[in-house]
Amino acid sequence: MMKKLYATRMSTIPKSFIREILKVTEDPNVISFAGGLPNPQFFPVKEIAATISEVLAGDDVSALQYSTTEGYGPLREYIAQRYRDKKGLDISADQILITNGSQQGLDLIGKVFIGKGDAVAIERPAYLGAIQAFSVYEPMFCPVPLLEDGIDIGSLKDVFGRYCIRLFHTVINFQNPSGISYSQNKREELAELLGRHDTVVVEDDPYGELRFVGAAPQSMRNWLDGRAVLLGSFSKTIAPGLRLGWICAGREIMDRLVVAKQASDLHSNSLCQRIVHRYLVNNDVDKHIATIIAAYKKQRDAMMTAIEANFPREVSFTRPEGGMFLWITLPERLSSLELFDRAIEEKVAFVPGTPFFVDRGGENNMRLNYSNSDEDRINEGIRRLGKIMKNLLAG
Amino acid sequence: MMKKLYATRMSTIPKSFIREILKVTEDPNVISFAGGLPNPQFFPVKEIAATISEVLAGDDVSALQYSTTEGYGPLREYIAQRYRDKKGLDISADQILITNGSQQGLDLIGKVFIGKGDAVAIERPAYLGAIQAFSVYEPMFCPVPLLEDGIDIGSLKDVFGRYCIRLFHTVINFQNPSGISYSQNKREELAELLGRHDTVVVEDDPYGELRFVGAAPQSMRNWLDGRAVLLGSFSKTIAPGLRLGWICAGREIMDRLVVAKQASDLHSNSLCQRIVHRYLVNNDVDKHIATIIAAYKKQRDAMMTAIEANFPREVSFTRPEGGMFLWITLPERLSSLELFDRAIEEKVAFVPGTPFFVDRGGENNMRLNYSNSDEDRINEGIRRLGKIMKNLLAG
Repeated sequence: MMKKLYATRMSTIPKSFIREILKVTEDPNVISFAGGLPNPQFFPVKEIAATISEVLAGDDVSALQYSTTEGYGPLREYIAQRYRDKKGLDISADQILITNGSQQGLDLIGKVFIGKGDAVAIERPAYLGAIQAFSVYEPMFCPVPLLEDGIDIGSLKDVFGRYCIRLFHTVINFQNPSGISYSQNKREELAELLGRHDTVVVEDDPYGELRFVGAAPQSMRNWLDGRAVLLGSFSKTIAPGLRLGWICAGREIMDRLVVAKQASDLHSNSLCQRIVHRYLVNNDVDKHIATIIAAYKKQRDAMMTAIEANFPREVSFTRPEGGMFLWITLPERLSSLELFDRAIEEKVAFVPGTPFFVDRGGENNMRLNYSNSDEDRINEGIRRLGKIMKNLLAG
Repeated sequence: MMKKLYATRMSTIPKSFIREILKVTEDPNVISFAGGLPNPQFFPVKEIAATISEVLAGDDVSALQYSTTEGYGPLREYIAQRYRDKKGLDISADQILITNGSQQGLDLIGKVFIGKGDAVAIERPAYLGAIQAFSVYEPMFCPVPLLEDGIDIGSLKDVFGRYCIRLFHTVINFQNPSGISYSQNKREELAELLGRHDTVVVEDDPYGELRFVGAAPQSMRNWLDGRAVLLGSFSKTIAPGLRLGWICAGREIMDRLVVAKQASDLHSNSLCQRIVHRYLVNNDVDKHIATIIAAYKKQRDAMMTAIEANFPREVSFTRPEGGMFLWITLPERLSSLELFDRAIEEKVAFVPGTPFFVDRGGENNMRLNYSNSDEDRINEGIRRLGKIMKNLLAG
């Protein structure tokens, strides 16, 4: 009735194909490799429940009152300390802003940096949540191909040569959807290139703690300091339902992010910020993460083994060093959308590649999640997918 | 270093004077009428703590997992049911979107409706949070004066005559900052006017349940149906630290709000949605609200009595029928900013009128909050303010 009433930006935000798919996969008989859900068997339910008596004990009711936009001080300090301890980064608590998961971090970055028509470099394929969050601010996306060791520096140079790039967004470790990670060498090249331009790099790192093999390369912040804005999340290490993540940024950018956060929702949930902080203080988080890593690695291994045994030889796939996703490349004559329709009939779900591309692309790609399925379901689901692929190729 | 990197909208968002003032008022010796804080003595701390064992009991870990963007089904149904029971509105759960407090509701409305330069009618004075949230989307604000019984219909007509007004935002009950409420008659006139234009009315109602006297007039939704978008909040009836509110809108608008919410932060805190729902189901909420009302009414009465006894005769003030704020109009030669500086010296804080105006105005106004002070502090604070006013007028 009132189409003309809506802002133009509403026509540019892609609806999440993934969330639509998730409705199909609510059927427990469907083997779903579609979502990006962490495995709930590792949610520290009892430990979280146990924090409430501490958080709501005594006369201090500040867990329930309005609070500062920046977030709960001790939680910010914990995050900063972990950056110092684990990554050797010189980060203080006042450089941490608590957000509602990384997704809100992306929205706030869009608010602060992206004006209509501004050039924003993203990975190709890109994290869908970033495409959605940034689309609200109507940028011109410049997708830059990912190689096996990170962004294609040559293509990125081209893009920098042609446009005034306002920011570059990267999921630097175990990328969603591709599973690939930037090598140390690639990061150095990237730092060298970005150092010559007035660009912010958004290092979106929700999966970084879930490394199965190898040593973690350095954060872009090592080279770029305040021009590297880091996003982190408790969704994959504790639980996503708490909706808590953070932005780590230098003082100047932080001031603006705080204004944007205040306008967005005043501050993040006070109660859950304290719950998460108490959980972190009371428990051995590294041990907890090690448990998740061991399980996900096993699931990844099971999926890679099953793929090798069941998928046609022409199908290739990435071998992620961590995280939650594998990325499949099908032979050109095999459409992932057609495969998807057939797979749903056989009660297996995945995400076709297309939503991860802002230009055309992804018709021959698919994203497989292994974090939220056990080995039996992985074996059975991959077996079914392989059979459908072979049938489609034969037909 | 990188000023040109920021989006232009960042220069249009006003920083919250109020949140700056709150830093001054962290000193417990300051009598603060500045914040908009509910009185924490009514936070149902024990009742909330008691819900956790139910919410995190058994095998259901959905309180900690990713969830639907729209929100927790039973909570949405509870809210819809309350609209049906208390206001006789025909609202179903699928017309409710759970948000991070009303503030996020305002941000989502800005995302969906406001394009750069679009005309948005607001009250004069206006709710500061709405000014901030909407400013991100760079509207042209059209402030319309408030009278004692609601918006000045004549001025609103003028504004509608001159501009294509995309939306009109009103805090319809016990407005922040003025304390005034729209009469039933005024609502009918407003409905008649809005019915002739393609405009959305945002009925922002965080205080509506806190009515001390009189019967509640009808919601604009009675007349305007899907074109009235209602915002509600648990911040003033349960606790603001949980950051939970909602938008109630018709199907067509809801579809777009859900896309905007998804892009903003996927969904609101799953754990706290369940905590609030459990709290609502397990407790007599109306009785709880009646306790808050009785206390706030006493505090309002104390403040009005103290004002009459202490402020100069030329000072006028609103007599709110509910909510948390009084609005003071000083004689023209008395600046509320000057008064503010003197008051801080005497350890009393309030909010001068200026931040509530997008055009010039408010120099002779001040907002006083009575919900978060006991009668002794109200008496002492108002006494000090009266003394300063008299000194300034004499000097």
